[in-house]
Amino acid sequence: MKQKLAIIKIGGNVIENQEELDKFLTNFSKMSGPRILVHGGGKLATQLATRLGIKSKLMNGRRITDVESLEVITMVYGGLTNKNIVAKLQSKNINAIGLSGADGNSIAAHKRPKKEIDFGFVGDIDTVNSTTINTLLNGNLVPVYCALTHDGSGQLLNTNADTIASEIAIGMSPYFETTLYFCFEKKGVLMDITDENSVVKNINPSTYKKLLDEGVITEGMLPKLENCFHALKNDVDNVCIGDIGMIDPNTTLFTTITK
Amino acid sequence: MKQKLAIIKIGGNVIENQEELDKFLTNFSKMSGPRILVHGGGKLATQLATRLGIKSKLMNGRRITDVESLEVITMVYGGLTNKNIVAKLQSKNINAIGLSGADGNSIAAHKRPKKEIDFGFVGDIDTVNSTTINTLLNGNLVPVYCALTHDGSGQLLNTNADTIASEIAIGMSPYFETTLYFCFEKKGVLMDITDENSVVKNINPSTYKKLLDEGVITEGMLPKLENCFHALKNDVDNVCIGDIGMIDPNTTLFTTITK
Repeated sequence: MKQKLAIIKIGGNVIENQEELDKFLTNFSKMSGPRILVHGGGKLATQLATRLGIKSKLMNGRRITDVESLEVITMVYGGLTNKNIVAKLQSKNINAIGLSGADGNSIAAHKRPKKEIDFGFVGDIDTVNSTTINTLLNGNLVPVYCALTHDGSGQLLNTNADTIASEIAIGMSPYFETTLYFCFEKKGVLMDITDENSVVKNINPSTYKKLLDEGVITEGMLPKLENCFHALKNDVDNVCIGDIGMIDPNTTLFTTITK
Repeated sequence: MKQKLAIIKIGGNVIENQEELDKFLTNFSKMSGPRILVHGGGKLATQLATRLGIKSKLMNGRRITDVESLEVITMVYGGLTNKNIVAKLQSKNINAIGLSGADGNSIAAHKRPKKEIDFGFVGDIDTVNSTTINTLLNGNLVPVYCALTHDGSGQLLNTNADTIASEIAIGMSPYFETTLYFCFEKKGVLMDITDENSVVKNINPSTYKKLLDEGVITEGMLPKLENCFHALKNDVDNVCIGDIGMIDPNTTLFTTITK
């Protein structure tokens, strides 16, 4: 039987709030067995860019990562956020090791090709290096990945943290029984957006279609759920969506996504 | 017989100059055997602080690391500089992994106690975690350390890169035949500061005393050489000072420090 591995992604709502982050990291430190944390950067990068007078460039409502934005992201995601999370986990006796996708050649990507929009230094993932990740896990280290990958030619690339989490889970599934957790601000996928407790307990491909037809799945949730089904199709064993309480074994209210 | 391990420290003069950095990284990538890179941050941190309107605080001519300065250092050393060096080494087929002292609990330190001067978030090193470093080296990874340590209670600390390099070399000396290289802007310790080629080929404790008496060792070199002798006294096998050419096996002009 394969050993269990948890891959947990946290977003801006956790990172930007010191109290929430501390609660999450305490829950994370109490989990048993090997685990990997993936974090985005949230508003801190935008705040730093603003302080530096760097304007966020948007094209059709989507963010463009130019040279200056990439520098800001590298400083905030790879430096400030990542190293502070690692130091905090160390204080909770978790032997965390903070990484970008360039470190140990963990996540190789290519710059998204120009089509209608040139997204700039944005990376689409090619491969996850399970050798590096296994080396770290076997050494009882807990990898903490920020949302940066690299192209193997010296270029760092901004990459969606949800995608990084699901590709790591996929990449590690030949070696572990993997559970992928997406932590966000809600307790799960909600039937009624105004009712925090109206959590859909389980979504499978057929109920997903139904929820889409009924308009329950809103635009913001769509890529997250597509990501979940992509992971399941590629041999990830379990996928869950919920808030930071989800990784507490006493919590039962969250959404599981199944094949 | 122990395997050889090289620990190489580069400073601001290399990091701030893309051409020099690229030359150095090419030399570094051509070295054989296990190696560890340690880098400071140089003027990039000061430049970012200036752009953010953060004033460098000095006390008796020495820099004070307050909360804001530590954030800048964490972003620049741990993020921008470290991740770009790692991405560049990956492009040269070196499986680099970028770390702070918090990562893998590699370098534990304590906040320097207030005496006449409160240096702020500056760390003096307590222990180097050879278990983590051996795990990485055994996994054929090449650790790249920035000048940050942690106190084990969640606090990152600014720590001198020369000291980090020598403490890592000391910590790894039970397992390896260690050579510690300090790369700086000169070809070595110079007899005549106006003559770039007047390199003192060897310094031992008795010639060191003589050079001090003669005023050849200037104030800037004093802590560097004290660091070298401290390393040698603590079982580091070889210590060298020179420019980035030093790690090229064809270069013979640099200073070796011996017991």
